[in-house]
Amino acid sequence: MVIGLPDEPQLRPVAGVRLGTAAAGIRKPGRDDLLIMELQPGAAAAAVFTRNRFSAAPVQIARRNLQTTLPRYCLINSGNANAGTGSAGHDAALATCKALSDLAGCPREMVLPFSTGVIGEPLPVARMVQALPAAMAELAEDHWLEAARAIMTTDTVPKGCSLDYEIKGQRLSITGIVKGAGMIRPDMATLLAFIATDAAIEATVLQQCLERAVQDTLNRITVDGDTSTNDACLLVATGASDITISADETDIATFQVALNQVCASLAQAVVRDGEGATRFVTVTVTGGLDEHECAKVAYAVAESPLVKTALYAADPNWGRILAAVGRSGPDDLAIDHVAIYLDDVCLASHGGLAPGYREADARAVMARPEYGIRIELGRGDATASVWTCDLSYDYVRINAEYRT
Amino acid sequence: MVIGLPDEPQLRPVAGVRLGTAAAGIRKPGRDDLLIMELQPGAAAAAVFTRNRFSAAPVQIARRNLQTTLPRYCLINSGNANAGTGSAGHDAALATCKALSDLAGCPREMVLPFSTGVIGEPLPVARMVQALPAAMAELAEDHWLEAARAIMTTDTVPKGCSLDYEIKGQRLSITGIVKGAGMIRPDMATLLAFIATDAAIEATVLQQCLERAVQDTLNRITVDGDTSTNDACLLVATGASDITISADETDIATFQVALNQVCASLAQAVVRDGEGATRFVTVTVTGGLDEHECAKVAYAVAESPLVKTALYAADPNWGRILAAVGRSGPDDLAIDHVAIYLDDVCLASHGGLAPGYREADARAVMARPEYGIRIELGRGDATASVWTCDLSYDYVRINAEYRT
Repeated sequence: MVIGLPDEPQLRPVAGVRLGTAAAGIRKPGRDDLLIMELQPGAAAAAVFTRNRFSAAPVQIARRNLQTTLPRYCLINSGNANAGTGSAGHDAALATCKALSDLAGCPREMVLPFSTGVIGEPLPVARMVQALPAAMAELAEDHWLEAARAIMTTDTVPKGCSLDYEIKGQRLSITGIVKGAGMIRPDMATLLAFIATDAAIEATVLQQCLERAVQDTLNRITVDGDTSTNDACLLVATGASDITISADETDIATFQVALNQVCASLAQAVVRDGEGATRFVTVTVTGGLDEHECAKVAYAVAESPLVKTALYAADPNWGRILAAVGRSGPDDLAIDHVAIYLDDVCLASHGGLAPGYREADARAVMARPEYGIRIELGRGDATASVWTCDLSYDYVRINAEYRT
Repeated sequence: MVIGLPDEPQLRPVAGVRLGTAAAGIRKPGRDDLLIMELQPGAAAAAVFTRNRFSAAPVQIARRNLQTTLPRYCLINSGNANAGTGSAGHDAALATCKALSDLAGCPREMVLPFSTGVIGEPLPVARMVQALPAAMAELAEDHWLEAARAIMTTDTVPKGCSLDYEIKGQRLSITGIVKGAGMIRPDMATLLAFIATDAAIEATVLQQCLERAVQDTLNRITVDGDTSTNDACLLVATGASDITISADETDIATFQVALNQVCASLAQAVVRDGEGATRFVTVTVTGGLDEHECAKVAYAVAESPLVKTALYAADPNWGRILAAVGRSGPDDLAIDHVAIYLDDVCLASHGGLAPGYREADARAVMARPEYGIRIELGRGDATASVWTCDLSYDYVRINAEYRT
């Protein structure tokens, strides 16, 4: 079940980016599982990657190539993460990059590899290489939806969004796609996200914008607390619009707002399609001394299996929220100042049940497909939010059955 | 399902301790849910409690009373945690202590209250007070099993163990009982554990022994990563044996060994009866720089929902273990030095699949009801172990249905 997402997102082209998909039979036959993303010459790129110490071979190569040169191609596959594959996995990723660069007539370093899927199995290089010409032949600016579909694993719908923004009187576009539904607690970026705009933005500025946007969006979601080995988010500025946004311009603020909105939409989409999810819940912690302590409490609530099963049961068992706050809160937390809300219903205050609380009110909130849990710490002005989902039978089914 | 525990533990009396139970109808009618534990005058006591900032009213009172005087009685109830109940909950716990002290003819401070069950509901004081005389009438040295049963909540079997040890040629006894199956990631002690010995040990020495024992046993288990508001472990030395163990005697080492063994048995019992558990797994991390980094990695693996669903499926999806190690390991972890074992089967080494690995071997290990996951970090001599269980449909069922 997916919460508040359409079957297909409306995705608009971004001048300077073409996409082509093909079926390489990487894990399952008969579905497109290979994506080539072509960037026009001179397009700037920024990226953030997982901080998992076991980062996958493609993550290591993409990170390195980005430091060397501007990319021309992204080569993305689903069905196999090429992680935990040692030096053979590294060679395999390089081989696929080389095959694409030979086909396209560019240096190998201009190809960035990305993989997602099962960890620890050898990448089927031959089948991927064989499918490259078909994907190249499909390259087109209006293939974002096909691209979003090709990178899915346990995702149930293709996910992405498009946004227009105006700078210097000209209409600019941003389009992004994302995949991910499990192993979701991004530390630097979520599984795979690709975003492009037709503005011209210098790479270091682009990188700053991306890091700022990711911090409160893709880095603030959790499905199961597990940080993937393959997380990566790539942002491309093609410059096809002839509008240049430089670092010192106020236009950068306009771009940042648009980018934040796209990243938030992509981040939410991952949780809305979280494995087995039936509820989309925003956990907000207010009144902390700093953002760090707010985020720590928010994650403790958002990741507690007891809270998540109560969300699934739509049971206002607020003692579980309170227990999670109590184990994650700062040592000198004054519990008398803490209050817990479900949307506008106050559950708890002064260390106990809120005066006038009626369980029926809380049940009404929890019956909604989306709602918020707010925890007021009563000790400062800082705040942090995390998007999460519930823990259902289906999460166990999906993850006990996946791979086998 | 319970893994490797008998339907009933064999529990032997400890001279100086009597136990009596009664049915107070706290949450469900017709079962004993109230326990009185009577200690002979002069018995020393040591205790460790939860570090959850929302510690329950009985935890706060028991902690305070222990600083004031030697206890004569413990008053323990299941079905209601009396946590998150504010000042009314505090008054309720005091009222039950007062009722018991009136009945027994001792100061109120000599009664230690303990509660376990649903958080946030008012304690049914009147029903508990009414049941006190019946529990007093049942006081007997051989009622440990009935006591273990009276403190159960989602536990499926009563849990406890007895051990004899010899000091100065005399046979001494330790018996302990424990309850807990969910909301298990003790920070100071697990839910409720009561241990008694007939040796005479001074309170400060007893406290040191308990803290040492708990560190590697009750503080090294996890079912769902949620630290309870009511965790408490009480250790009593009645002195009924006339054998005195003082701080500087080598006999203390003998006692410590016996105590550690009892605490390990109780800690394991909680995980073996973990909510929905079908596997009992020891996660051991070796070769770390210090115990802290070993424990951090062990907990990350032991609490990962993806690892735990793979344990449930008996699926050697070792990439999930590797991903959990990678997100929790030290920043400078050299992944080439990491190796992962299931019992004696090496899954991964040098950042990839181990040479000669056969999936059938791993499957054979995972079909066992109990086994070990060992992670070698290859950077030092420290080690840490955590006991955990798998994540099954039944965990979701139990926690989505509990309370409603």
